[in-house]
Amino acid sequence: MCRWLAYAGTPIHLDELIYKPAHSLIDQSRHARLGVETTNGDGAGIGWYPDERYATTPEPEPAVFRAIGPAWSDRNLHELSRCVRSPLFFAHIRASTGAAVQQTNCHPFRHHNWLWMHNGAINGFSTVKRELAMAVDPALYADIEGSTDSELMFYLALSLGLEDDVPGAVERMIGLVESAAERHGVPDAMQMTVAVADGARLWAFRYSTERHSRSLFYSTDIDTLRALHPEIGVLRVVSPDTRLVVSEPLGDLTGAWNEVPECSYGLVQPGEDEMRSEMHPLTPVAP
Amino acid sequence: MCRWLAYAGTPIHLDELIYKPAHSLIDQSRHARLGVETTNGDGAGIGWYPDERYATTPEPEPAVFRAIGPAWSDRNLHELSRCVRSPLFFAHIRASTGAAVQQTNCHPFRHHNWLWMHNGAINGFSTVKRELAMAVDPALYADIEGSTDSELMFYLALSLGLEDDVPGAVERMIGLVESAAERHGVPDAMQMTVAVADGARLWAFRYSTERHSRSLFYSTDIDTLRALHPEIGVLRVVSPDTRLVVSEPLGDLTGAWNEVPECSYGLVQPGEDEMRSEMHPLTPVAP
Amino acid sequence: MCRWLAYAGTPIHLDELIYKPAHSLIDQSRHARLGVETTNGDGAGIGWYPDERYATTPEPEPAVFRAIGPAWSDRNLHELSRCVRSPLFFAHIRASTGAAVQQTNCHPFRHHNWLWMHNGAINGFSTVKRELAMAVDPALYADIEGSTDSELMFYLALSLGLEDDVPGAVERMIGLVESAAERHGVPDAMQMTVAVADGARLWAFRYSTERHSRSLFYSTDIDTLRALHPEIGVLRVVSPDTRLVVSEPLGDLTGAWNEVPECSYGLVQPGEDEMRSEMHPLTPVAP
Amino acid sequence: MCRWLAYAGTPIHLDELIYKPAHSLIDQSRHARLGVETTNGDGAGIGWYPDERYATTPEPEPAVFRAIGPAWSDRNLHELSRCVRSPLFFAHIRASTGAAVQQTNCHPFRHHNWLWMHNGAINGFSTVKRELAMAVDPALYADIEGSTDSELMFYLALSLGLEDDVPGAVERMIGLVESAAERHGVPDAMQMTVAVADGARLWAFRYSTERHSRSLFYSTDIDTLRALHPEIGVLRVVSPDTRLVVSEPLGDLTGAWNEVPECSYGLVQPGEDEMRSEMHPLTPVAP
Repeated sequence: MCRWLAYAGTPIHLDELIYKPAHSLIDQSRHARLGVETTNGDGAGIGWYPDERYATTPEPEPAVFRAIGPAWSDRNLHELSRCVRSPLFFAHIRASTGAAVQQTNCHPFRHHNWLWMHNGAINGFSTVKRELAMAVDPALYADIEGSTDSELMFYLALSLGLEDDVPGAVERMIGLVESAAERHGVPDAMQMTVAVADGARLWAFRYSTERHSRSLFYSTDIDTLRALHPEIGVLRVVSPDTRLVVSEPLGDLTGAWNEVPECSYGLVQPGEDEMRSEMHPLTPVAP
Repeated sequence: MCRWLAYAGTPIHLDELIYKPAHSLIDQSRHARLGVETTNGDGAGIGWYPDERYATTPEPEPAVFRAIGPAWSDRNLHELSRCVRSPLFFAHIRASTGAAVQQTNCHPFRHHNWLWMHNGAINGFSTVKRELAMAVDPALYADIEGSTDSELMFYLALSLGLEDDVPGAVERMIGLVESAAERHGVPDAMQMTVAVADGARLWAFRYSTERHSRSLFYSTDIDTLRALHPEIGVLRVVSPDTRLVVSEPLGDLTGAWNEVPECSYGLVQPGEDEMRSEMHPLTPVAP
Repeated sequence: MCRWLAYAGTPIHLDELIYKPAHSLIDQSRHARLGVETTNGDGAGIGWYPDERYATTPEPEPAVFRAIGPAWSDRNLHELSRCVRSPLFFAHIRASTGAAVQQTNCHPFRHHNWLWMHNGAINGFSTVKRELAMAVDPALYADIEGSTDSELMFYLALSLGLEDDVPGAVERMIGLVESAAERHGVPDAMQMTVAVADGARLWAFRYSTERHSRSLFYSTDIDTLRALHPEIGVLRVVSPDTRLVVSEPLGDLTGAWNEVPECSYGLVQPGEDEMRSEMHPLTPVAP
Repeated sequence: MCRWLAYAGTPIHLDELIYKPAHSLIDQSRHARLGVETTNGDGAGIGWYPDERYATTPEPEPAVFRAIGPAWSDRNLHELSRCVRSPLFFAHIRASTGAAVQQTNCHPFRHHNWLWMHNGAINGFSTVKRELAMAVDPALYADIEGSTDSELMFYLALSLGLEDDVPGAVERMIGLVESAAERHGVPDAMQMTVAVADGARLWAFRYSTERHSRSLFYSTDIDTLRALHPEIGVLRVVSPDTRLVVSEPLGDLTGAWNEVPECSYGLVQPGEDEMRSEMHPLTPVAP
């Protein structure tokens, strides 16, 4: 089932979000509140883009750390989170919906400069898996390393133009999955919250065929939060365009969290931000 | 924190208890009800004595399988449980109280023909650890492979005569631990349910310094259960001296489970059984 | 690259072959002599059929244990090998030819009552992988859990009639792989030694497109060995139809090992045995 | 048995030494040339001090990553090595001399700002282990997490004043070990190459009771190397005090490697460097 968080903004240490909050991702690995399972102990992963001020190459790939042990006991995850600082990163804790517990089934998935992570499932996946796999661009097929629906969704989106048009590709991917499921008599095909990043921008999607999607929240914009909570010092040092997107709120700070509406997506980018209450609708496009 | 189960009686496949019951040990690895934590995902282990009818050596050592992944996703554990049949076995799922997640910190612990497992903790363990380690028989010290209080308690008991007098050794071990804790100003030193087996007999202990011990139950004797539940076929094929001891009941069968009283222990052995409501009192013996 | 061994005959403990010989499989995990790599430390696995005399169900599935750590340090593998006795078993140590180190990429692979293991590789696998995956029976596609050529070969063979005609299916599988490789301009497509078992019989194959195959040996028949080596007691207690097939000899016993010829296969079954020097030729059948 | 490398100087990415050289540490994990074993696949670890220019706290602890899988297949190790840049770091690949394969038995070991790694063994360790453990400062005893001689040597050195006088503490530690071994009738007690760092300085030791120590080399000073090899560009961008200490040379560059003499130690520090051919003698100090 899974829980995840994505951050974009002023570079911070990963542990500020993964470990320190009252209901951090680590706490959610054992006591998730809004998910299908309270335990998310089938592996964890982080992906982070380097701090631009220290980058040594023009367009570096994001780095990824993935491990099959539960997040709460992963010392290496803790070490990394303490010493890595990043302006754009993903963190994910996994609860398997059937696929094996292995490193290649942990999120985030990476393809060149792209990161992808997912909470949810494709209903009746084993029934439609072959058809979906065959729809992946032949040039990309052999890059699929694991056996999850999550990774397959990523490769379908890549095949359907993710690198040029993220929302469009995701809409086409959903449409393809729902279409295949329908032909195989599988109801409620898609259940997903998804985060995508290319190194500069971050998209967050919330959608389900049954219109009852896994939880997803985004943080209130910094200026508003500063006014609401002058007592919180860190709000003064992060840039105004800093944003978090999370499966469930990391704490109880009043006014800090906003639900991403059903069947919609938002975009976070430096400066101009499109993550606000009137988000973009998500409309699947059948093949 | 942990949960465990011990079985003695007619040889059965391990999965009959570890996997099949409604509230099996596998279910308890994610949804324990009577423990400190609902999640017990810091490793798992089983120890089993061979089916005597097929034994190839006179007094074989029990076999042990221990792994650091959570029990719920351990395929090897499932495979073994399906194909191993044993008349006397231990199964344990771990929730660490501080010590590292590693195979040598999983239970059960083995020494020659002896098996030992534990739920609970020694309070202020890091404060008293050295003194306790020094009290272990020098000839045994280097056999200690892990860093848990559980394993150290086992080696203390071995040093204090476990192989000749199990209850006495456990009482002396508790006394030694409480005495050391007192000298270091540590309150409520001991918290434990412990199972011990030598290949023929099984002892179960429930004790805590604060007299508020971790949960422990034993199964009602078979003859009584048969009368209570004629509808349950398996009760007719197991021997009358068959007995289970569990951290928490594996299901809701009326009259099947009995709480082990505070500060007491019971003994299960072929034929004559000393596991009944008026159990033996457990009295720590200070050094 | 890998090394493996298969045994059929009088039930023995697995460790008699996996651990005890001078050049056991465990020794080969660090010091293989006839393979591409001396180190085979990318996981290990065993698959075994139960001892018929103790079977509890008519046609049980073989049990499988697979782990990602190197065989030489795997305590659970050692424990199991000590206590499992089987009349027909597989053991495999892995040296990856590219695919990730994960449990689902360890051999042997199992499908119902069938076991399969492989040493070698499909050349240019990423180039032909999609086409081969598409040729798998749609009803079986979703059962593929890993990313190895080895497992895909198994599923192709199953799709091509393995359950009815093992040699024929393997020949058709090789033909299909070579045909796809040729169309993609990949030379020397197939490199393989393969073992297959169904619970009663054991087939061993040795083949490569370039006619320079990975090493494979079978043991001399027991009667001949007994005459050659009257000093070896164990030869007197195993049945005359007992046979081993190995990637490389487990020791230096004179006259004990015979090379399986290039492009051939043999069959081991109770009583009538077809594993002898004039083995069956292996002729790929193009689709 | 193990192999290791230590680096001090201009900040570089870890993979420059761990992965890229012809006979990198990764190559040594399968094909070590000068060690007891060619395979060092019982875990790996790295410890690194942050790049001072980007440090966020005055005296930060070094970060440590340790994993039990073989280095050659560890994707996380590869990722980290690619993106971590450090002016002072340790890397170690393990070949166990008996102690279990677990994260707490991987090097480097850390205590506050100190790092320690070791190649070698204490002969007859199980015989002297208790006595040595009891010699550790009681305030430090419970910090020992693993079961290796290597870690125990570190804690003995800490107990004997490592934080104030590194060479003196190591000499006293060796003396204590040899003295205990002698009383227990164990010959050739100590076999070691050891690296120690405090965040600013790096010490390297080479010693064995039998005066036949594990291999250890240090790199020629940069100015000399530049003159010898004007063709190597990287030599022009690293500071003159840059130094490597390695179990075995990472490549065949003429004049680049110098053997650390038997029973001696050297010190690498910014500016003034004491790592040269006439190193300091190492004289054990008996207790």
